[in-house]
Amino acid sequence: MIDYNPKSWFTFIFRVHKADTFRKLLPLMLAIAAYSGVIVYLEVNVFKLSQNSHIKNISLVHTILSFVISMLLVFRTNTAYDRWWEARRVLGSLTNTCRNIAIKLKAINIGADQRAFFSTAIPMYADALRQHLRNERWDVASVPTIMVNPDEHVPNQIAGLLTEQVYSLHRDGVINREELLLIGPDLAALTDICGACERIKTTPIPFSYSVFIKKFIFFFTMTLPYGWSFSLGYLVVPLVAFVLFVLASLELIAEEIEDPFGYDANDLPVNRICTNIHKHVAELLKKNN
Amino acid sequence: MIDYNPKSWFTFIFRVHKADTFRKLLPLMLAIAAYSGVIVYLEVNVFKLSQNSHIKNISLVHTILSFVISMLLVFRTNTAYDRWWEARRVLGSLTNTCRNIAIKLKAINIGADQRAFFSTAIPMYADALRQHLRNERWDVASVPTIMVNPDEHVPNQIAGLLTEQVYSLHRDGVINREELLLIGPDLAALTDICGACERIKTTPIPFSYSVFIKKFIFFFTMTLPYGWSFSLGYLVVPLVAFVLFVLASLELIAEEIEDPFGYDANDLPVNRICTNIHKHVAELLKKNN
Amino acid sequence: MIDYNPKSWFTFIFRVHKADTFRKLLPLMLAIAAYSGVIVYLEVNVFKLSQNSHIKNISLVHTILSFVISMLLVFRTNTAYDRWWEARRVLGSLTNTCRNIAIKLKAINIGADQRAFFSTAIPMYADALRQHLRNERWDVASVPTIMVNPDEHVPNQIAGLLTEQVYSLHRDGVINREELLLIGPDLAALTDICGACERIKTTPIPFSYSVFIKKFIFFFTMTLPYGWSFSLGYLVVPLVAFVLFVLASLELIAEEIEDPFGYDANDLPVNRICTNIHKHVAELLKKNN
Amino acid sequence: MIDYNPKSWFTFIFRVHKADTFRKLLPLMLAIAAYSGVIVYLEVNVFKLSQNSHIKNISLVHTILSFVISMLLVFRTNTAYDRWWEARRVLGSLTNTCRNIAIKLKAINIGADQRAFFSTAIPMYADALRQHLRNERWDVASVPTIMVNPDEHVPNQIAGLLTEQVYSLHRDGVINREELLLIGPDLAALTDICGACERIKTTPIPFSYSVFIKKFIFFFTMTLPYGWSFSLGYLVVPLVAFVLFVLASLELIAEEIEDPFGYDANDLPVNRICTNIHKHVAELLKKNN
Amino acid sequence: MIDYNPKSWFTFIFRVHKADTFRKLLPLMLAIAAYSGVIVYLEVNVFKLSQNSHIKNISLVHTILSFVISMLLVFRTNTAYDRWWEARRVLGSLTNTCRNIAIKLKAINIGADQRAFFSTAIPMYADALRQHLRNERWDVASVPTIMVNPDEHVPNQIAGLLTEQVYSLHRDGVINREELLLIGPDLAALTDICGACERIKTTPIPFSYSVFIKKFIFFFTMTLPYGWSFSLGYLVVPLVAFVLFVLASLELIAEEIEDPFGYDANDLPVNRICTNIHKHVAELLKKNN
Repeated sequence: MIDYNPKSWFTFIFRVHKADTFRKLLPLMLAIAAYSGVIVYLEVNVFKLSQNSHIKNISLVHTILSFVISMLLVFRTNTAYDRWWEARRVLGSLTNTCRNIAIKLKAINIGADQRAFFSTAIPMYADALRQHLRNERWDVASVPTIMVNPDEHVPNQIAGLLTEQVYSLHRDGVINREELLLIGPDLAALTDICGACERIKTTPIPFSYSVFIKKFIFFFTMTLPYGWSFSLGYLVVPLVAFVLFVLASLELIAEEIEDPFGYDANDLPVNRICTNIHKHVAELLKKNN
Repeated sequence: MIDYNPKSWFTFIFRVHKADTFRKLLPLMLAIAAYSGVIVYLEVNVFKLSQNSHIKNISLVHTILSFVISMLLVFRTNTAYDRWWEARRVLGSLTNTCRNIAIKLKAINIGADQRAFFSTAIPMYADALRQHLRNERWDVASVPTIMVNPDEHVPNQIAGLLTEQVYSLHRDGVINREELLLIGPDLAALTDICGACERIKTTPIPFSYSVFIKKFIFFFTMTLPYGWSFSLGYLVVPLVAFVLFVLASLELIAEEIEDPFGYDANDLPVNRICTNIHKHVAELLKKNN
Repeated sequence: MIDYNPKSWFTFIFRVHKADTFRKLLPLMLAIAAYSGVIVYLEVNVFKLSQNSHIKNISLVHTILSFVISMLLVFRTNTAYDRWWEARRVLGSLTNTCRNIAIKLKAINIGADQRAFFSTAIPMYADALRQHLRNERWDVASVPTIMVNPDEHVPNQIAGLLTEQVYSLHRDGVINREELLLIGPDLAALTDICGACERIKTTPIPFSYSVFIKKFIFFFTMTLPYGWSFSLGYLVVPLVAFVLFVLASLELIAEEIEDPFGYDANDLPVNRICTNIHKHVAELLKKNN
Repeated sequence: MIDYNPKSWFTFIFRVHKADTFRKLLPLMLAIAAYSGVIVYLEVNVFKLSQNSHIKNISLVHTILSFVISMLLVFRTNTAYDRWWEARRVLGSLTNTCRNIAIKLKAINIGADQRAFFSTAIPMYADALRQHLRNERWDVASVPTIMVNPDEHVPNQIAGLLTEQVYSLHRDGVINREELLLIGPDLAALTDICGACERIKTTPIPFSYSVFIKKFIFFFTMTLPYGWSFSLGYLVVPLVAFVLFVLASLELIAEEIEDPFGYDANDLPVNRICTNIHKHVAELLKKNN
Repeated sequence: MIDYNPKSWFTFIFRVHKADTFRKLLPLMLAIAAYSGVIVYLEVNVFKLSQNSHIKNISLVHTILSFVISMLLVFRTNTAYDRWWEARRVLGSLTNTCRNIAIKLKAINIGADQRAFFSTAIPMYADALRQHLRNERWDVASVPTIMVNPDEHVPNQIAGLLTEQVYSLHRDGVINREELLLIGPDLAALTDICGACERIKTTPIPFSYSVFIKKFIFFFTMTLPYGWSFSLGYLVVPLVAFVLFVLASLELIAEEIEDPFGYDANDLPVNRICTNIHKHVAELLKKNN
């Protein structure tokens, strides 16, 4: 995620950022500009179509459909954003759950070796989830004290270990009944969080919408120059490119934020969240508390 | 569900996929194109209506109503998508619940035969739910060790068996009080998940909206050529077909994703979800853990 | 609720169903058609207003306000649908809760007479709620074994009886501590479900919106013919009727689905849901299980 | 709240109800009508501006901004309605919670004096909350048996008394462990309900939106007559008043339903809800049950 | 937060409040007014472009895109408002949670020194959260009796202290089992509330949307004068400034309410909420109760 100051308008408007859709769409915009230029040249200079030509009124269709296209893009934007925000909320719960487990364990006064186990295993869960969501193989050497099988579902294994540890501390009498009942739902929440992230990651918008929106934008912009050449002449060239920029940008951004766990510029600050969990769990479970 | 790369625009735009609404709507589009051609021929070549004819201005109505139709389509799209996404969320909870039951049972250290029972019965619930949602009869031979009556509600029976087993392990002292209190809500969640899926499956959008939207699209497109022939001539033929394509596509896609548990191209990956549950429960409850 | 196949477009478009708003609005459409005819006759044949008349431009107002009216109708549609869908979700919870209570009681191994009591009382709750929501008096003779006072709140009484029975079984040691803690929230959920249904039933959209939308549709359509007669002549007659059909249909459908517990064509399948509860509870609590 | 039959269109359209925005906006509409008349008189009769005057085209701005203004009004309408509906949902939970507490206490078989205490204190909470939300001082004489300090937060005090009573019954062995665990969350829910109502009451839409929408409506309608006089002449007078009626009505209704606990015509039926709680709690906790 | 009476329209329209976007945008509006004046001067007086110039029709693009821009702004407004309202809801839960902890502790009858500890520590949590969200260092001297390390996460430490205290009172037998189970979730809720606030604070709308909306508003308004000079002449100067005011205001307000915990005029009444928590906790835990 890019940290930015939303109030510095000047920079926003004139700087072309690496993640800016303007940069990504430039080749496409140049292509459609050239295409529009050819259409205008043919209509105005070659065929010299009269102002009464029916082609002039083709933009009637664009007016009728401009509502539909803008509403579709807003639908696309809303669903992509909702998904992004849900992912953020789920990662927020990860932080809260890790902190709550640490706070409760600290209040229970478990032994020093248990403290060490939990202050390693809790942030390890966050790290493993991050790797899992990025389809990266878990590096067994990174946490040598806790063995997991990198070929199976790593977060599940760590959640399993945490649960077993807590249940066995309960059977040993270290954790009493009420304390187990209060910490149990937090352990189960880890798996719910993992499942929610997997769901967001593996389920993009239904295929048909994705196809339909792209086809619609394409035909909408490709037919614009036919009608507009009569009234706009060669001004069509920059203007059609601008319309394409606006419409395609929205689709592009929506695609980018739909899978928010990666390394894209708009993705969520997964690394920062993991670092914070490391820091806060360490603060809470450290010795001298 | 079709797995696709949402970023390959080129393929999206030019390839006509099997699930593409373009293919499904082609006959309808050809029909309306022919119909529009007839209208233009009559207005322009037969009756030679003058530019002052009142029929020319019929498109005033289309302008006034184009907002209403696009908003209705967005309403339709939103509700269908919300339902699809809710179904996805519910199936996600199914995964989470099955994993959580397995993680908790593993931590409890139940006997080998119990382990075998649960590692069969939990994924069986997912399979039975899938069959139930697809109105397919449960194949008793598929899980010979656990008998259910295929003429009654199969998921209910399996949930009942799981609950009975856990309650009786509790009465036998294998599962202690707190462990029962922590696993109980997961067992009840299975039935809630089943109920939510049944609700989504059996309740399409209210009948009146379904009728109204279809009637509206029909009359809207059928009256378009009357006004447009004056200004667009025979260009009306492809353009009205294109408008129909846009409006009817949205209704078609909405219909398809509304019941998301079937075999349609846009339906949810129910099979993949069941396979994952089989795999993860097996990993968690396997012997050598 | 009407069961229908959402994919048979042909029937939808040409058949005028009993619940169709077309049928209900026909008298109103004929009235406004006649009214429009009179306006056109006066403007065109009697007063012979010139094309420069200011009245011609009255449709400027309709353009400015057509956004507002369509957005209001979508607001109306959305809120009515949300309420309908919430009602469906609540009735779905009723099914889930009844099933869960039965599954848990079955696992507890209560005595035969208790089984009989619960397999009568649970579906009775669903029936009583249905009658209550339809303002129908509870027929005491329908369930002779369980006495309730039909002049007081019947669902409350049955929920009270169920709760008392479970609590007393707990005091008698039939239901143990954990089993009570797990079944308790389900019993409380019944009353929450009843409250949610009552809320949806007794609270229509705020009075002012209802008045405002109706007034707005009325004035919007009644002023349409003045401006349109100039450009559309007698075509105004069917077109204004069509616009009224579209706008008033949306309001009509919204009104119908707002109280979804009745006998209207679009109402929820309350009877089917009750029948299912009877069937599933009987399956779960039957003797030979 | 006004009870009304949403299906009697005739009354809605022609009757000017006390709560109708038409009545409230009448002075403002007359003022803007007079203002518009002056503008038309000046433009048409005094300065006799030609049809080529630039002022004529000022309505270009109104077209561009008409989307923005209608979307803003829908945003306003949606947020006000959501808040109103959330308030209704919260008051519904109050009913459910009170009933559930009564049902559970009845099942516990507490003594007669305890029964008397709770059947007084539960509805008292609802009454106190109502007074609190209307900034009315609690009348100590209204419930002489239960003393509260009207200068402190009254609902908090009653929730405190209820909780203390239940906890002490538990310590005395009247309420057993499981019964306490099941009734505890209901007692806490009372305070959550109170907090939710206070939140809705004390937090209107952000100040800037409130200012901005009012300024925007004002300038939008005040500039309408300049451009429209050319094409509409003195018809501008009623038409601008109508546009103002539509735009300002939406803002007015939104303002009214934003704080839904008062005595406005659109406010929630707080009194009826309290009466129902009195009635149902009395039915449930009466002696002969 | 500014307390205001939403019904005093007059003040709203004519008073330019300190927080008004009008004041903030004035320099920008003057700049674009000057820029528009130059364009008009060049087009009308210097180049004397004819009415047939293609530049005149550049506003075709503005019409096509005016839907997109208004929908984007509504998307922006909705997401900013949702976040603001979620923040308000979370702060409301803070109040409810603090009250509920106090009500439960009061019912438990803890000792006087414990009472003193909790009546200090609970409001201290609210204060610490406020400072934390405003990036202000916790002043150790403000609560001398409870030591925290201002270089670590302060709210976490206080939540840890509260949890430890309650758990140790439970181990000492002051708080019994059920009372611990009922108060435990409230203590965990504090950390969830803190996490939710941090999430809202640290996650603005995705960078790409922020850039895109600002770029779009800029190019949209900067190109308006080219087409409009033909039909509006020097009237373009105030009108383009007005359009900019409308579009940029929405973006400005959205930016302001996005981080609602600061000192901006539209921010949430964080101080008032903290004061109320102080007051209510003191009322509930005071001696003579």
